[in-house]
Amino acid sequence: MPAPQEFLSFVDTNANAFIKRLAEAVAIPSISGDATHRADVVKMGEWLNTHLKAVGVSTQLVDLGKHTMDGEELNLPPAILGRIGDDKSKKTVLIYGHFDVQPANKSDGWNTDPFTLTIDESTGQLIGRGSSDDKGPVLGWLNVLQYHHQQRKALPVNLRFCFEGMEESGSEGLDDLVERESKPGGWFDGVDCVCISDNYWLNTRTPVLTYGLRGLTYLKVTVHGPGRDLHSGVFGRTVYEPMTDLIAIMSKLVDSQGNILIPGVDEMVCAADEEEREIYESLDYSYKDIESAAGGPVALTTDKVDLLMGRMRYPSLSLHGIEGAFSGVGAKTVIPAKVSGKFSIRLVPPQTPEIVDPLVISYIESEFAKLNTKNTLTIENLHGGKPWVADHTHWNFEAAKRATKAVYGQDPDLTREGGSIPVTLTFAESLKVNVLLLPMGRGDDGAHSTNEKLDRSNFIEGTKLLGTYLYELADIQGKK
Amino acid sequence: MPAPQEFLSFVDTNANAFIKRLAEAVAIPSISGDATHRADVVKMGEWLNTHLKAVGVSTQLVDLGKHTMDGEELNLPPAILGRIGDDKSKKTVLIYGHFDVQPANKSDGWNTDPFTLTIDESTGQLIGRGSSDDKGPVLGWLNVLQYHHQQRKALPVNLRFCFEGMEESGSEGLDDLVERESKPGGWFDGVDCVCISDNYWLNTRTPVLTYGLRGLTYLKVTVHGPGRDLHSGVFGRTVYEPMTDLIAIMSKLVDSQGNILIPGVDEMVCAADEEEREIYESLDYSYKDIESAAGGPVALTTDKVDLLMGRMRYPSLSLHGIEGAFSGVGAKTVIPAKVSGKFSIRLVPPQTPEIVDPLVISYIESEFAKLNTKNTLTIENLHGGKPWVADHTHWNFEAAKRATKAVYGQDPDLTREGGSIPVTLTFAESLKVNVLLLPMGRGDDGAHSTNEKLDRSNFIEGTKLLGTYLYELADIQGKK
Ligand SMILES: [Zn+2]
Ligand SMILES: [Zn+2]
Ligand SMILES: [Zn+2]
Ligand SMILES: [Zn+2]
Repeated sequence: MPAPQEFLSFVDTNANAFIKRLAEAVAIPSISGDATHRADVVKMGEWLNTHLKAVGVSTQLVDLGKHTMDGEELNLPPAILGRIGDDKSKKTVLIYGHFDVQPANKSDGWNTDPFTLTIDESTGQLIGRGSSDDKGPVLGWLNVLQYHHQQRKALPVNLRFCFEGMEESGSEGLDDLVERESKPGGWFDGVDCVCISDNYWLNTRTPVLTYGLRGLTYLKVTVHGPGRDLHSGVFGRTVYEPMTDLIAIMSKLVDSQGNILIPGVDEMVCAADEEEREIYESLDYSYKDIESAAGGPVALTTDKVDLLMGRMRYPSLSLHGIEGAFSGVGAKTVIPAKVSGKFSIRLVPPQTPEIVDPLVISYIESEFAKLNTKNTLTIENLHGGKPWVADHTHWNFEAAKRATKAVYGQDPDLTREGGSIPVTLTFAESLKVNVLLLPMGRGDDGAHSTNEKLDRSNFIEGTKLLGTYLYELADIQGKK
Repeated sequence: MPAPQEFLSFVDTNANAFIKRLAEAVAIPSISGDATHRADVVKMGEWLNTHLKAVGVSTQLVDLGKHTMDGEELNLPPAILGRIGDDKSKKTVLIYGHFDVQPANKSDGWNTDPFTLTIDESTGQLIGRGSSDDKGPVLGWLNVLQYHHQQRKALPVNLRFCFEGMEESGSEGLDDLVERESKPGGWFDGVDCVCISDNYWLNTRTPVLTYGLRGLTYLKVTVHGPGRDLHSGVFGRTVYEPMTDLIAIMSKLVDSQGNILIPGVDEMVCAADEEEREIYESLDYSYKDIESAAGGPVALTTDKVDLLMGRMRYPSLSLHGIEGAFSGVGAKTVIPAKVSGKFSIRLVPPQTPEIVDPLVISYIESEFAKLNTKNTLTIENLHGGKPWVADHTHWNFEAAKRATKAVYGQDPDLTREGGSIPVTLTFAESLKVNVLLLPMGRGDDGAHSTNEKLDRSNFIEGTKLLGTYLYELADIQGKK
């Protein structure tokens, strides 16, 4: 069952109204990471709640309690649960999105006011914070719902919604809510599959379905030495210097080519077979895409498959920096007393922080012992999350493939993402159903960067894609 | 010719008045590194000039021009040149000191207001910023002059003075002044030796004469990669990461035991012969002194001679930190686009920045080439200075030894300092005469730290030492 032509026309006809509504949403600076904007996050939740109710969704605001940020105790913005449709003969789809955004200041390098949606008529770009991450996709669902409500058309599936206002700040309180509502009798009881639109195409040309995300383990290695910072003139070559030991340790974690030197970590991941390599081979991508995104000729390889597998299906180890050392401009002759190296490993199945951390810790401890220093070592895990990979042959993905073909006239690329969206795994594990990542925006949207944008065509065709996906879901052979 | 008993009694009798004068000087927050205190540095110079004139010194304030600090153009505080005595039959001694101080805030951890000289009656400590570095020693000379002026006694030597207000901020403008005034007809023409009281005893017990200072070369190694900071989820294992390359380079400079790994640098310094080892063997010192000063059990060795030579007569390499990497608290998953490692090497004869830098640069470049990375490398020298070693058997040192024995009843330890006082070398090279460092304070004075102090006995006996040194100079066989 393809989407009704009437729906597609409705979207085209109402495109300008949809963009106007997106402008309204972007104008609310719902920055979850900034305490002074907490009221705006709440306001944005209320705005969304009002619009959901206006198109026939029954909602419930869920108080997620309090948390501490920058030493201040704050109320968490409520999450919004929504439901529409209870037809036992239809599939039930859970939609997730978030209504908070990353910080943005004109002075960061924005060409326009970040909280005024600016339409660049020449490029078709809708520029503003949250346009692509994640207000555009959330409003895409509103657009789909508006058609059915306004035209009094029944939706082809039952829908459940879960919208949060803390995604950009660790999704505090959400895991508990999802686990609670996934139980029998909970809000998500009876959900057959999940769809999340909160990532991006690999490039600017080809639609994407995403079936994997890397996990993460973030570690802090601290070397403790003298009781206070020392002057290198007075103490140089008389004491064990913590920086020397820390740099020695950090140099043993990863090589310039990206190989992880911790025994057992890279080895834990099986090589890709021919079938899997073909997925990467088929993707519309080139090393020039990564170099253009990175802003420099620094790709590890020109081999497309190796590059894509480096991002999507192999672990990576990045050294982020050092806390406690001299980090300012100029020349300070300090011997820092206590320094902490920060690094993280992106994880892929079967790796988890629980499996990988002990390997890392015992390796670092044994390398540190070889240094024969009188300084001491501590290692902490700052945070982490498991990787996620879904079955991309599932009917949930099949429906999205058909919808993509119908709307864009081309097959979607099947991708895995290098980063993590932790709630994906929570849905997969709590509901034990297939989770699909169905991105609306392009790879160059600049989600967490300056001049974030969503292309007009991605918003409008993306709205058609979301609606069409629901019709294809209803149609496809599968559970229900 | 020992100092007259009358002088020693005068110092004891006037001790409280001398301390009161020191309190006046400490009360002027002459912080040269803080633009908002520049007027206080000038005020301190005027205070000193007034006091010098009051005890019979002819002075001249020298405008050193302007400089830029923190992006602001500022007038440099004037230097003070002084002279008293022109007796051709007497030796002429040049005295150097500085009237500016390091920054200090109560909130840094001071137990008392740093700019109120606080007398701890139980310990005899005079606590306040500048008490030991360098207002105490400068006022020691004032005390000596006051006796001769007030009692109408001729000084045993001719004196020339050079006092500056920028020592804590790179002595801007001073080198030019010293070179200019060292020429025939200049203010320092005819000077036979130099005495600088601006360092410290090795411990808290034994007076010291210092005959060597290490030099310095401070380098910044920058690795340039992507055009902007990247997210490790998206880019991890797809690009050459500048941090990985920089850490690899930094790990190849020095080992945990303090050995410099750059070929040719350690090797450039000859081993100590038995005679030199005996100097270190004779010093009143133990590895416990360094551990107590460092605030932790981190001495490289318990061997006193090796430890002292590590500080005084071998080069050292310290890694200070990284600019451009993540240095805050918490966990940021950034791949920094451009990172600069900062390190410095303390130099000893025959090393100079001109000789050592090319070795360092070519070694780093060859190690970087081995990394086989597409990132690029630049190396800058941020600043540097040559080491200095004086002949400690010179009559200038002999006079100071006799004075020490007379005042303290014990022979001074002969030391070299690990750090640098760049003007020392300028005096030695411009005047081509012997330079003596004759410290007043103790090793635990905390010159650049919180709760800086000068012990009352060091101020009072130190004043006697400075005066006695002049009489021993007059007496001793030597030039003039
Ligand atoms: Zn998002
Ligand atoms: Zn985001
Ligand atoms: Zn000083
Ligand atoms: Zn100083």
